[in-house]
Amino acid sequence: MRVFSELTQALRKLPGVGPRSAHRMAYHLLQYDRDGALELAQALAQALDSVQQCEQCNGLSESAICSTCADPERDHSHLCVVQSATDQAAIERSGGFNGLYFILAGALNPLDGVGPKEIGLDKLLERITQTQSNNNDNKAIAEVIVATGFTAQGEMTAHILREHLSTLGIRSTRLAKGVPAGSDLEFVDTSTLAHALAGRN
Amino acid sequence: MRVFSELTQALRKLPGVGPRSAHRMAYHLLQYDRDGALELAQALAQALDSVQQCEQCNGLSESAICSTCADPERDHSHLCVVQSATDQAAIERSGGFNGLYFILAGALNPLDGVGPKEIGLDKLLERITQTQSNNNDNKAIAEVIVATGFTAQGEMTAHILREHLSTLGIRSTRLAKGVPAGSDLEFVDTSTLAHALAGRN
Repeated sequence: MRVFSELTQALRKLPGVGPRSAHRMAYHLLQYDRDGALELAQALAQALDSVQQCEQCNGLSESAICSTCADPERDHSHLCVVQSATDQAAIERSGGFNGLYFILAGALNPLDGVGPKEIGLDKLLERITQTQSNNNDNKAIAEVIVATGFTAQGEMTAHILREHLSTLGIRSTRLAKGVPAGSDLEFVDTSTLAHALAGRN
Repeated sequence: MRVFSELTQALRKLPGVGPRSAHRMAYHLLQYDRDGALELAQALAQALDSVQQCEQCNGLSESAICSTCADPERDHSHLCVVQSATDQAAIERSGGFNGLYFILAGALNPLDGVGPKEIGLDKLLERITQTQSNNNDNKAIAEVIVATGFTAQGEMTAHILREHLSTLGIRSTRLAKGVPAGSDLEFVDTSTLAHALAGRN
């Protein structure tokens, strides 16, 4: 069935869905949950229609500027740079940050041809330069928190971004490395322990 | 964002997708793969429009009778009863069967209120009775292969179905239990080994 295999192919666009899962999902929707399938089709169309990228932070928004960027209660002098919207959501859940965000499209990966332009590093630097040159003390960025992942690619992205920032004379920080809350020391890897010791407070 | 959380809810209709995966999928589609999201919405609408259940076997089909049921080359005297369309697909892939199918909607589960009517056992028995009473030797069912799963519920479903079939005077069989192809005897569980010994040939 051509239509069925087209649906299977389309379901594979979802992250983490391989050929077998896609097959099972397609069968399930058409055989047991046609209402669910209709709901999903409509929700997708509706979201495509009304959800866009925030012009400032690249996050998802139903308006040109997202509610986080537009919030006057938030601290506009602190900018947190993350690799993905899910990372932003994790930081929001932690409740430890009340500034603004900038969401990169992943981390640098030169071997796969993913450079500063592809992940939006250029757009970020442009935003920072503009904000600083406006000479509006209220809006000036005092600190950029580089919250990319602690993977090889995340670290590389952080390194390059921080070099640019230091050239611009802007203070930048990284999240603290250390022992996760609630974990037993004996199960923490040596590299994390070494960082936790070096950063003791 | 209301629209975004509606999409997340709709994605949870997919089997095996929990709140976290649904969130990740929604972000991914809207942020990095809007073409994929559009394709999925269209494929769903198209499939809902043109794929239906086969009147004879309950399988998915783009016409009232599916291509398997309508195939004159297939052996109409052998009927294989399975729990799901994916089980049917597995048997087809094995290449060991050239008869017709009947797809139940799962297995009996009286504790959850899933009885013979809910899984389509009534419809199956009706189909068999009709076929036999037509007195058309070409189409008469000589054997029903009860290929429900070897789980407690699958075995119970098989047991009840086979009792009905024996009342109707129709020969029924189960798939052979035994050692899986390519497996080392030392890793096979004792129950399977006992069955494999009893069914030695």
